[in-house]
Amino acid sequence: MGATALAGATWTACQAPESEGTAPAPGPSALGAPVRRYGERSPFEKVARGVRDSKTPEAASSRTPLDETYGIITPSALHFERHHAGVPDIDPSTHKLLIHGLVERSLLFSMDELKRLPSISRVHFVECSGNSGGEWSAKGAPTVQLSHGLASCSEWTGVPLRILLEEAGVKPEGKWILAEGDDACRMQRSVTLEKALEDGIVAYGQNGEALRPEQGYPLRLILPGWEGNTNVKWLRRVKVTQGPQYVKDETSKYTELMEDGQAWIFTFEMDAKSVITSPSGGHAISKPGFHEITGLAWSGRGKIMSVEVSTDGGASWTEADVQDPVYSRAFTRFRMPWKWDGGESVLLSRCTDESGYVQPSREELIAERGRYSAYHCNRIKGWRVAADGSVSNAEA
Amino acid sequence: MGATALAGATWTACQAPESEGTAPAPGPSALGAPVRRYGERSPFEKVARGVRDSKTPEAASSRTPLDETYGIITPSALHFERHHAGVPDIDPSTHKLLIHGLVERSLLFSMDELKRLPSISRVHFVECSGNSGGEWSAKGAPTVQLSHGLASCSEWTGVPLRILLEEAGVKPEGKWILAEGDDACRMQRSVTLEKALEDGIVAYGQNGEALRPEQGYPLRLILPGWEGNTNVKWLRRVKVTQGPQYVKDETSKYTELMEDGQAWIFTFEMDAKSVITSPSGGHAISKPGFHEITGLAWSGRGKIMSVEVSTDGGASWTEADVQDPVYSRAFTRFRMPWKWDGGESVLLSRCTDESGYVQPSREELIAERGRYSAYHCNRIKGWRVAADGSVSNAEA
Repeated sequence: MGATALAGATWTACQAPESEGTAPAPGPSALGAPVRRYGERSPFEKVARGVRDSKTPEAASSRTPLDETYGIITPSALHFERHHAGVPDIDPSTHKLLIHGLVERSLLFSMDELKRLPSISRVHFVECSGNSGGEWSAKGAPTVQLSHGLASCSEWTGVPLRILLEEAGVKPEGKWILAEGDDACRMQRSVTLEKALEDGIVAYGQNGEALRPEQGYPLRLILPGWEGNTNVKWLRRVKVTQGPQYVKDETSKYTELMEDGQAWIFTFEMDAKSVITSPSGGHAISKPGFHEITGLAWSGRGKIMSVEVSTDGGASWTEADVQDPVYSRAFTRFRMPWKWDGGESVLLSRCTDESGYVQPSREELIAERGRYSAYHCNRIKGWRVAADGSVSNAEA
Repeated sequence: MGATALAGATWTACQAPESEGTAPAPGPSALGAPVRRYGERSPFEKVARGVRDSKTPEAASSRTPLDETYGIITPSALHFERHHAGVPDIDPSTHKLLIHGLVERSLLFSMDELKRLPSISRVHFVECSGNSGGEWSAKGAPTVQLSHGLASCSEWTGVPLRILLEEAGVKPEGKWILAEGDDACRMQRSVTLEKALEDGIVAYGQNGEALRPEQGYPLRLILPGWEGNTNVKWLRRVKVTQGPQYVKDETSKYTELMEDGQAWIFTFEMDAKSVITSPSGGHAISKPGFHEITGLAWSGRGKIMSVEVSTDGGASWTEADVQDPVYSRAFTRFRMPWKWDGGESVLLSRCTDESGYVQPSREELIAERGRYSAYHCNRIKGWRVAADGSVSNAEA
């Protein structure tokens, strides 16, 4: 790990006078606050999701401040949002899930019935397929919250969808499913039965407690590594079908226009992606010396195998330390010790996943997928550190 | 995993009529709530820490509702509390950490200075050494929140204490450290330098965001697997010393009285422990059929290797499924499929850690550690399922 790489290091700590009497002034001597039933963060903490002014805040998004979060778990209160019709207020005591369509017998589950079934917990990212949409342009976004904040990672708990489908008995002609949410727009997406059986989770838990309302309370479909919108929130039914349904949100949206005028559809897997979260755009480095470079990498195809970091705009690359254990289809934290010499520097990161896929440059991405898509932008992102310590989008 | 073990299983789902027209009534058709900067849980959720009436709620504890949490991450808002002088309100912009004592040079760090140093994130439990204190008696507590709720598990992020100590330069005669908090009582504990160097973390992050105030905001010492009180909150200084300091909280408290009148002191490691969280005391099983048995196991000595479950009061044992990956010194989730036949049943769990240590019965524990301790009770806990489905303490 980075710590080891630092032995005999060059970072400068503030040196304190040596007598014990010079310890920092102690805090209050009066008794502090009592215990309480449900905690809240310190009033000094102001970290927030990024919310843009909108005439339709119900059909909008908010972004995780990736540069102000730690480790690989995104606090539930800061998990990104993307809603098509706002957050419904659902009473779990009346909520039901229907499994139907091409099955031997339809099944209807209450929340209590789901909770007595076999459960699993898995750490997985969820990412809006429109995350980093602005990075298709030559000039990307100025902060990592704006460029990559439509991705978050949680420990999800629920029932494997496979169990529900096996109990219902999928008929031989059933090859896809349609998942539908209980929000006002009845958000729908078609996905393959194969994926549903492989690792789909009907989740009721997030980071140890019930799902947050904006993450689908009381029930959400988790399809690890697949486009965020297929992870249908406020899940009310799963219908087994012969093929995809071509619903509104998979024709008018979530397709990718190619150079020849045709469009890709059902591009479910999120490609391998990494970004440096610190230092990143908007930060100010106080002084030359040691600073840790850290960031996040993830892939819809499995585990992240390695992350390389460049501090010279791509002229040379160094393999970063990756926090273990590495989960499949989850945020992976990378870190690299760095001594800033006070000169201009351009920081980049590039990841490789277990399928062998290497995160592309913008040029490589456009060569493969054209320049007209708003989705699936996973190109390498750069941050420029200026001589005054200010950090900004490298392409600004 | 349990799911696989269930193939062709016996749990009975509610069968729904087969026509699509009988899907559950859809939710509201009006737009839901807009996006927001910092999320909150659903107003339908009432899960809470257990707080007992106290004349001194500042020097009290609150307990995690282990039977109402999922996976291995405890939500920060539900992490147990144990304070000796209440929760101080500390401004992170003025908080400092002093490293001093038997070092080559004393060091004083601001929060900003700490955050640019090499960091690590680790999932670890913290457990009050008084957790399960009531289980020393023949008749244990009626709910798992009361019997085991002084333990919680988080992803902690911070600077390895080793780095700070190496930078300060520990003198050869330095063998212990004294850690001190910035609460009104200046909570102090002596621990070995060896442990501090091995895996101590000066943590500023918990579950992806800043520590919660009641967990030591803005800075806490994490000593993985060691008594909760050594994980000093609101950390303000670490002093390298020749030996332990025998401060108030390691003489008047946190010692264990043996049968011969002598007391054990500095019993740092929390022993391997497991408990079934569902079904558990206070629950009511609705009807015979499939119910998942699930619980948590942890050890201060490393990883949990296996958990066995008995549904017949210990006459026979079955190895449970353990959620992977298993972290060292962290909550480990176990699960076992169970078909309740409607008769009386006594549920037990027993874990083994990687040191080979096996969780003891109450009799075995007393044989080793006497009957007068209030601390380190890790004996096997039982729950009785009555024929009416009610679940209670097996020894009540």
